Amino acid sequence: MPWPSRIVQQEGLLVLEHMPSIEIAGGDERVQHALARFIGNLSVQTGIPFDRQFPGSPAGPRFVIRCAGTGRRIQAVAEDESYHLIVSRAGIVLTAPNPLGLMHGLETLLQLVEAGPLGWSVPYVQIDDTPRFAWRGLMIDVSRHFIPIEAIERNVDGMASVKLNVLHLHLSDDEGFRVESKRCPRLTSLASDGLYYTQSQVRDLIAYARDRGIRVVPEFDVPGHAVSWLVAYPSLASGSPPKGLVRSQHDELRPPLDPTQDSTYKLLDVVFGEMAKLFPDQYFHIGGDEVDGKYWDNDPKIRTWMQNHAVKDDHALQTYFTERVQKIVHKHGKEMEGWDEILDGDLPKDSLIQSWRGPASLAAAARMGYKTVLSAGYYLDLMYPASQHYAVDPLAGESAALSPEEKSNILGGEAAQWTEYVTPENLDNRIWPRLGAIAERLWSPESVTDVDSMYRRLLVLSRNLEWLGLEHEAGRRRMLGRIEGNDMPPELLAPLAMAVEPVKEYDREKTQVYDGKAPLNHLVDAVSPESEWARHVNALGVRAVHDPSAREDLRRQFIRWRDNDGIIQPYLAASTLREPLIPLSRDLATLGTLGLAALDAIETGKPISPDSRKEQLAQVLATAAHHAELFLAVTPAVRVLVEAEPGQ
Amino acid sequence: MPWPSRIVQQEGLLVLEHMPSIEIAGGDERVQHALARFIGNLSVQTGIPFDRQFPGSPAGPRFVIRCAGTGRRIQAVAEDESYHLIVSRAGIVLTAPNPLGLMHGLETLLQLVEAGPLGWSVPYVQIDDTPRFAWRGLMIDVSRHFIPIEAIERNVDGMASVKLNVLHLHLSDDEGFRVESKRCPRLTSLASDGLYYTQSQVRDLIAYARDRGIRVVPEFDVPGHAVSWLVAYPSLASGSPPKGLVRSQHDELRPPLDPTQDSTYKLLDVVFGEMAKLFPDQYFHIGGDEVDGKYWDNDPKIRTWMQNHAVKDDHALQTYFTERVQKIVHKHGKEMEGWDEILDGDLPKDSLIQSWRGPASLAAAARMGYKTVLSAGYYLDLMYPASQHYAVDPLAGESAALSPEEKSNILGGEAAQWTEYVTPENLDNRIWPRLGAIAERLWSPESVTDVDSMYRRLLVLSRNLEWLGLEHEAGRRRMLGRIEGNDMPPELLAPLAMAVEPVKEYDREKTQVYDGKAPLNHLVDAVSPESEWARHVNALGVRAVHDPSAREDLRRQFIRWRDNDGIIQPYLAASTLREPLIPLSRDLATLGTLGLAALDAIETGKPISPDSRKEQLAQVLATAAHHAELFLAVTPAVRVLVEAEPGQ
Repeated sequence: MPWPSRIVQQEGLLVLEHMPSIEIAGGDERVQHALARFIGNLSVQTGIPFDRQFPGSPAGPRFVIRCAGTGRRIQAVAEDESYHLIVSRAGIVLTAPNPLGLMHGLETLLQLVEAGPLGWSVPYVQIDDTPRFAWRGLMIDVSRHFIPIEAIERNVDGMASVKLNVLHLHLSDDEGFRVESKRCPRLTSLASDGLYYTQSQVRDLIAYARDRGIRVVPEFDVPGHAVSWLVAYPSLASGSPPKGLVRSQHDELRPPLDPTQDSTYKLLDVVFGEMAKLFPDQYFHIGGDEVDGKYWDNDPKIRTWMQNHAVKDDHALQTYFTERVQKIVHKHGKEMEGWDEILDGDLPKDSLIQSWRGPASLAAAARMGYKTVLSAGYYLDLMYPASQHYAVDPLAGESAALSPEEKSNILGGEAAQWTEYVTPENLDNRIWPRLGAIAERLWSPESVTDVDSMYRRLLVLSRNLEWLGLEHEAGRRRMLGRIEGNDMPPELLAPLAMAVEPVKEYDREKTQVYDGKAPLNHLVDAVSPESEWARHVNALGVRAVHDPSAREDLRRQFIRWRDNDGIIQPYLAASTLREPLIPLSRDLATLGTLGLAALDAIETGKPISPDSRKEQLAQVLATAAHHAELFLAVTPAVRVLVEAEPGQ
Repeated sequence: MPWPSRIVQQEGLLVLEHMPSIEIAGGDERVQHALARFIGNLSVQTGIPFDRQFPGSPAGPRFVIRCAGTGRRIQAVAEDESYHLIVSRAGIVLTAPNPLGLMHGLETLLQLVEAGPLGWSVPYVQIDDTPRFAWRGLMIDVSRHFIPIEAIERNVDGMASVKLNVLHLHLSDDEGFRVESKRCPRLTSLASDGLYYTQSQVRDLIAYARDRGIRVVPEFDVPGHAVSWLVAYPSLASGSPPKGLVRSQHDELRPPLDPTQDSTYKLLDVVFGEMAKLFPDQYFHIGGDEVDGKYWDNDPKIRTWMQNHAVKDDHALQTYFTERVQKIVHKHGKEMEGWDEILDGDLPKDSLIQSWRGPASLAAAARMGYKTVLSAGYYLDLMYPASQHYAVDPLAGESAALSPEEKSNILGGEAAQWTEYVTPENLDNRIWPRLGAIAERLWSPESVTDVDSMYRRLLVLSRNLEWLGLEHEAGRRRMLGRIEGNDMPPELLAPLAMAVEPVKEYDREKTQVYDGKAPLNHLVDAVSPESEWARHVNALGVRAVHDPSAREDLRRQFIRWRDNDGIIQPYLAASTLREPLIPLSRDLATLGTLGLAALDAIETGKPISPDSRKEQLAQVLATAAHHAELFLAVTPAVRVLVEAEPGQ
């Protein structure tokens, strides 16, 4: 995963129990590093202590690596990432025009290693692989909850394993400014709560990512989402300055920068100049999203300035701002990237538009001649199932009607992980394994759309990611253990924990105010955004309509749901971490009872009246209610059975 | 855990949802560090982002910390480690004469924090606590398999949490010399395979341990177990020099140092002098165990020397060696420690004897006036259950007859983790949680001997250790995942994996030659030394003789054992990692069948003949056979049922 462009499997296995005998030609230092990493990961994954000493062991299979070029000094958007991999009786041959392709080929090879009747081995195979899109990214918001560098790095490892190539860091927002500025130290001393990356950490991270074929694009969000800037420089606020960093949804004063003051641009020039040197990537992201015009409308100085300069409305004022910022970014040798609100025909054509508002703005940008990247549909914080992200294709929908040249402006896509309700503890859980489905959409041919196959491979990916140190599973287990405490036997919480999912989209805000200092230690924070178990049970429900053995499996589950509630209620009441789960457990028991009745009805074939069915359906639907920012994701399994009951 | 010397519980809970308001008086920098660690661990354990800024929040409960003294600059054996902890409506008061006691008190407090109906809280309590023994250690062999510093550090965290205070590192053996020597760099360049600690890492580790109340005692094993020395300095060998480092049980040439050459002592003086500076502890461990006399007997030069010097036998020769080494150790300001083979009445009385051969040598050393520490009975690599270690008391057995003064020579005990079959991947699994039982034996009053209580608390400890980053559980899961691969559903291997334990004592050597380069990736390497599940099932077996509900529980298990085998056999055959488990799975199925028959017999009350019973018992015992370096640990559950069948 992601599935390669072209794969031909042959009969036979190459045994890999001994360190291969390795020959390398070409490439740059990244090839050596990638190979050392490959051997290290292979040791971890197989448990065989492969000796990392080059050129390996003559007892092992031959492994020939050829890299035609050295790649760009600063990784660029359109480098050739293709590779060819042949595994045969003669050994392994991996060739690529560029170190990037070579790294991708090594990741593919690692995924092919399995233990079988001959020991660890790789199937004979021929793979020609190249990505469909040049821009395959993940954005992480490190402002709302700060994410330490180790957590970023292990996610970079995960990204490399699914062949993503852009890490976009959302480095400043109303909640904090997260990079050391030596020119303007107030930005971190006053506006970071001490939580920020030093420049040396940033340089290390960039080198770490480059070594794994990943560009790092920095984002400093202006003129909105800029309270942290204004805590450090209050005189640049539109209207009155903020009272402090934004801590929660309750903090309503979030003025944008004042686009009418020259000193705003002077500060941006200094900071962006410094950051443009620190981050070597060709692109520099200036945000530009969600500017709240009311601060401009209500500031007499700004209104007067707008009249004097014939700037007709807020949109025009933002365009004025964006154009000036674009010149600053350009002056420091970068191309500007921004969210789709900055879209305006007068922007220089080398600007890049990141579309978060939907496929329409993506298509519009491409049509206007801007390079563009899709994020709408790839927001991981909305808790959608992997299949939903998987179905989002940058070249479908509005974009399907574009000319080939316009289509070529669509560089790819970027998943986004906003962190209102995410801490370093559950970051991995929120990202993985779902990001694998997005990575496959952006790498594999358009025709690769088999959802069942995707989910099967996602499970394998999820397990393999644990070898890299990703904590999506380990973190979930630890957090469930915290909720169980020392008094509750773990098997008692499991039936409930496996049956729920966090509420979707922005529904959590409706019942739990976002607060950066609030503990995120409840069940909603521990469980996966998508329950693999619920997916399984719901599929079982569909099968059970006609398949007696599926009915037997389900019956066991339903009995467990029905009977577990009585056992766990006293435990739920005994801790504030569990008490909010009381209604969910009751609803699960109800669902079990309804499911058993439906199974009985199907098996006895006794017809029920339309009224009874309606009543039962209403009861089933009622169990899908939100509690504790969760809902029962297994409702469809029972619903399909109730609907299948023999009618009168 | 360990249980305190004196604890008085009161009605009521102190809520701990906000950062306490902290007042500190006295102590040294270790108190500040310990407090910062406490707050950090509390955040991790509760999921509440406590602000680490001193002095905390006025909204939280009052937390008064008073430390009367500053402790010794170099932590010594007999410092006062006691503390008093009061939790009441008024807040928390922790007092100690010494930073060491203060650290222990903070660990106790952390263990008391639980989530309840009022949120996170601590019960009102008064604790007066002091250790029974002054020396409570863990030895780790880092020579046979090198253990990286991160793995050592996380185990130091674990040690601190159970109030252990000595980390003994077995730093050199036939397999490698594991510390950088600047004076004799050949020791690592020729005799470490590149796997060793730099001096700077050692200094950091010692500071890390000191900060947690733990001394670091280095061991350099001479004159036996010294092949690594001789790979670097072949001319010092008794007989002919070794061919290279010992790699496996097959390497039979393991000469000791030549005790008759002056250059041997010159080298030891240089290296021990350097190491005595690097390791500040009062004690310096020179090993001295298992010297193979045949190399001395067969070396004509050595024989001649012995005749000339009237040294009558090998024991006398070792004593001569030990006395000279003792002078070197003394000269560098240290007291000598050694394994019990060095015991000889002529040794200076400040020598410390570590008894690995049994309580007799411990008592003998104490009687002769030597300080001594017990390790026999605390060897974690022998795979004994926690209860067996728990039953070993340094003052019981031969020592019980000692005079009070002689008894005072017994300083405590030390668990030992030898690493023939241990890698960094399963080190934690081999040590934890069993070490908790030994820690309790060495800390708690002699009267604390309730095994059921110990096991209950050991489970809690095991879970809490995961918050510290210990990998005993996570590693086990990952290693089981490796064996399951991508083809075998995890629930299929579990019944077998939960029912087995590694073979005990040195039985593994009989079927699997120890080889430092062999992969340790099989089920025996993944599962816990003691199966909590088997303990549970065996207790259920005892209850089931009279208790029908226990019989119902067991019946479900037995059916699962019987039926799972047919399902998993094809999976077992499909991978070299699983294939050795085939007979174990068959035996488990047999055990299930026998167990079901025994349950039927008990329930129907139908008497069986002595011959049938004998035949059944023979079948049960046959299922305890060793396969794949494992055995079924659930056999007793069935055996007790067969024996309970109504006889004729």
